[in-house]
Amino acid sequence: MNHPFLQALENIYPAERILTRDAQLLPYESDALTAFNTKPGAVVIPLDEAEIIATVRLCHEMAVPFVARGSGTSLSGGSLPIADGLVIGLNRLNRIKRLDPQQRIAVVEPGVVNLHISEAAQPYGLYYAPDPSSQSICTIGGNIAFNSGGAHCLKYGMTSNHVLGMKVVLADGAVTQFGSESLEGVGIGPDVIGLFIGSEGLFGIALEITVRLMPQPERYRTVLAAYDDLGRAGDAVSMVVASGLLPGAMEIMDRLAIKAAEAAVNAGYPDAEALLIVELEGEAPQVEAEFEQLNAIIEESGAFEARVAQSEDERMRIWKGRKSAFSAVGRLSPDYIVQDGVVPRSRLGEALLEINALKGKYGLDVANVFHAGDGNLHPLILYDGREPGALHKAEQLAGEILALCVSLGGSITGEHGIGMEKRDYMPAMFSEEELDLMQALRRAIDPKEIANRGKMFPGSEAPALTLQGMHPLERQGVISRE
Amino acid sequence: MNHPFLQALENIYPAERILTRDAQLLPYESDALTAFNTKPGAVVIPLDEAEIIATVRLCHEMAVPFVARGSGTSLSGGSLPIADGLVIGLNRLNRIKRLDPQQRIAVVEPGVVNLHISEAAQPYGLYYAPDPSSQSICTIGGNIAFNSGGAHCLKYGMTSNHVLGMKVVLADGAVTQFGSESLEGVGIGPDVIGLFIGSEGLFGIALEITVRLMPQPERYRTVLAAYDDLGRAGDAVSMVVASGLLPGAMEIMDRLAIKAAEAAVNAGYPDAEALLIVELEGEAPQVEAEFEQLNAIIEESGAFEARVAQSEDERMRIWKGRKSAFSAVGRLSPDYIVQDGVVPRSRLGEALLEINALKGKYGLDVANVFHAGDGNLHPLILYDGREPGALHKAEQLAGEILALCVSLGGSITGEHGIGMEKRDYMPAMFSEEELDLMQALRRAIDPKEIANRGKMFPGSEAPALTLQGMHPLERQGVISRE
Repeated sequence: MNHPFLQALENIYPAERILTRDAQLLPYESDALTAFNTKPGAVVIPLDEAEIIATVRLCHEMAVPFVARGSGTSLSGGSLPIADGLVIGLNRLNRIKRLDPQQRIAVVEPGVVNLHISEAAQPYGLYYAPDPSSQSICTIGGNIAFNSGGAHCLKYGMTSNHVLGMKVVLADGAVTQFGSESLEGVGIGPDVIGLFIGSEGLFGIALEITVRLMPQPERYRTVLAAYDDLGRAGDAVSMVVASGLLPGAMEIMDRLAIKAAEAAVNAGYPDAEALLIVELEGEAPQVEAEFEQLNAIIEESGAFEARVAQSEDERMRIWKGRKSAFSAVGRLSPDYIVQDGVVPRSRLGEALLEINALKGKYGLDVANVFHAGDGNLHPLILYDGREPGALHKAEQLAGEILALCVSLGGSITGEHGIGMEKRDYMPAMFSEEELDLMQALRRAIDPKEIANRGKMFPGSEAPALTLQGMHPLERQGVISRE
Repeated sequence: MNHPFLQALENIYPAERILTRDAQLLPYESDALTAFNTKPGAVVIPLDEAEIIATVRLCHEMAVPFVARGSGTSLSGGSLPIADGLVIGLNRLNRIKRLDPQQRIAVVEPGVVNLHISEAAQPYGLYYAPDPSSQSICTIGGNIAFNSGGAHCLKYGMTSNHVLGMKVVLADGAVTQFGSESLEGVGIGPDVIGLFIGSEGLFGIALEITVRLMPQPERYRTVLAAYDDLGRAGDAVSMVVASGLLPGAMEIMDRLAIKAAEAAVNAGYPDAEALLIVELEGEAPQVEAEFEQLNAIIEESGAFEARVAQSEDERMRIWKGRKSAFSAVGRLSPDYIVQDGVVPRSRLGEALLEINALKGKYGLDVANVFHAGDGNLHPLILYDGREPGALHKAEQLAGEILALCVSLGGSITGEHGIGMEKRDYMPAMFSEEELDLMQALRRAIDPKEIANRGKMFPGSEAPALTLQGMHPLERQGVISRE
């Protein structure tokens, strides 16, 4: 990193909050897309928004690329630094500045951990709805960058449905506010909040975020249905959707995923080809009315067994199995690739059949764990990295699954984002005109392309990655060892 | 209009679809903001998207400003032409290209009338939810430009919540697509659909729109509650909101509005200071459970009378009064100004008290009819234009109501938009940085600012209005005689 820039940083930060030594930089070289690492030029640790603003203005002036980083949980490499660029570490901006139970809002800093908002709202019977699996560690700033969802976002939507207002510093240093403190205040002119949320850090950094809080559900009803056929479980999801029911969560696991979950936490799941978990939530009378309807659908769908959680303990046990399945797959295979794709819910059955056929074609096992309610597939492709060519095959299979998602009218990512991982897949989803439009909007705000440079767009100036000990094919940026 | 441009149009359109004679232009000189009219240079009537695209490209090339127009129902002057500019009339693009009851989507052209979608979906038990009062005439293209809502948008949201995908021609002539045919396909990168919806035509023209259809509610429960105090009706709304109930509609009328409605349609409303209409809708068991809860709230709120519609006829009669109140105010006063503002729902009571005080200050009557559920006020300020200074007073009062909305954390428009009418109020809502950001985004797509030039932004190149027979104060663009 060039000296004048470092000197200028010293006008903003005391020396102990400018990290430049190798040992200090190490934790910032990678994120949850662990196959990649790059050494940034420096890391700064701001304590308030004035320091963030001054930093972004300096970067803009001196054309130094930066990435804002919370806990570094991005699975697509969204918080990877660019070589010799700046990392702005936001974990110290972790204050809940205000919580208004009557207005049902919280005003928070970008480094606040997702779960901490719900914990603070709990005494008032409120919670913050979006629940990514990493919610006990990931931060709101990152949730905004990737429009994060979670198992329980089926009913109430992703981050974009829960942010009412934001104060941001744009990539060119301008400070501005969008939205307001109430749902009613939003809505004049172009939806700039929507533009910002999900833009993977390309437009700037959120300094202060107003989120809405929701009343905690009064009642849950959690049903675990077992099928001897994966397609039938998929069809059951279509039937629930067609009925007009809107559960809080709707998840499917296939045989291999069930096996992994059992091995890990002994969840007591039935022996089945597929499990469907449907959770209803809301006011008690409404949930009970829906529950009756759901039972009829599950019976009609051909489940050979259906269990209803009789206590909060049983409910937690069902969820523990589901939530551990992901990491537990590691027990079944030395290596695996997790893929993140989306298909329209009405085509879930088709997608599962095709993935099955691909397993045969490549001679590899695939475990399926997914948010069925919103068509978000997470196939886990198992391989043994010690076998020559195995990674290559697994990678090809992963690519075919993404192509399948696109061909069925879905998407190459449901919640992990594009980041570094999938930027080369963007042309499969978007035309040149569409990509040009996104770039034009970006350059309108960031003419020097300093904000999270190298992410999202194919062929954009690539970050000079320091690729240590990687398989050559991993360098294409489309796979992860996670 | 300059000759070379007209000549070039002849390469796209046959002569009978290029209107240039005064008599032909007359219907396009004004919209529902009737105080304004301007003569465009020409009107073209495309029959398909290829003609629209060719027209926009020509406008871009020759730097000729254009406005896309459906039925011209904008209350803020959003479809007013610019003097000597081009009007692109979209009423002939009125095809429903596809309706898929299983996927619950319709693919439509921009000139399709809002209500026609629901009519086409009716045989399948489906409907298109957003219901602006003008829904029997207004078009989807305009609904997108203004992110239109309606009385029944409380539960299911505005236009932006119901558009899944769009094909658009941008102001620079590029043709692109956003979104997909399913909820699951949306969500990579910046939300360009959100940017486009509500942007009042600044970014281009929607060529093809995929909307989602919803199942028709199985059951309605419509309650009419009468209060001897307007503030108490406002508080009842806060109580419903706080209870977690989410009605399909929640409307308030004050004494003067009730009087107007009675005079017009003899709705049989009780004699009261305020009426609150709450309509529950959805699956029967859920609605019945909610209905019990609602009854308890209405009782607790101090209503001196509460009626429940016992038949569809009674329900329609309640709504007929509400829907006619707006225009019926004309029976009580020779002239009136309708204002459109928003306050947070929790501050409704305060807002009504303040408006009451303003009535006294100006010695003018104000009738209040509003979408209470989303805090959207529609105060109608009555005055007699023949009295010297009356319009001026009415206009000042209208301005004070908008200022009040902003100071309470609300907005200067709930659903009518900025258009010509309120562009000078934008600095009351937005900082210079915010306006700069919107302009930067606009210029990224429309460097020549040809798409709906003169709207939304204060101090932007003003359309040379032909102001005929107007009070000088009306020329400021903040009031309407509607």
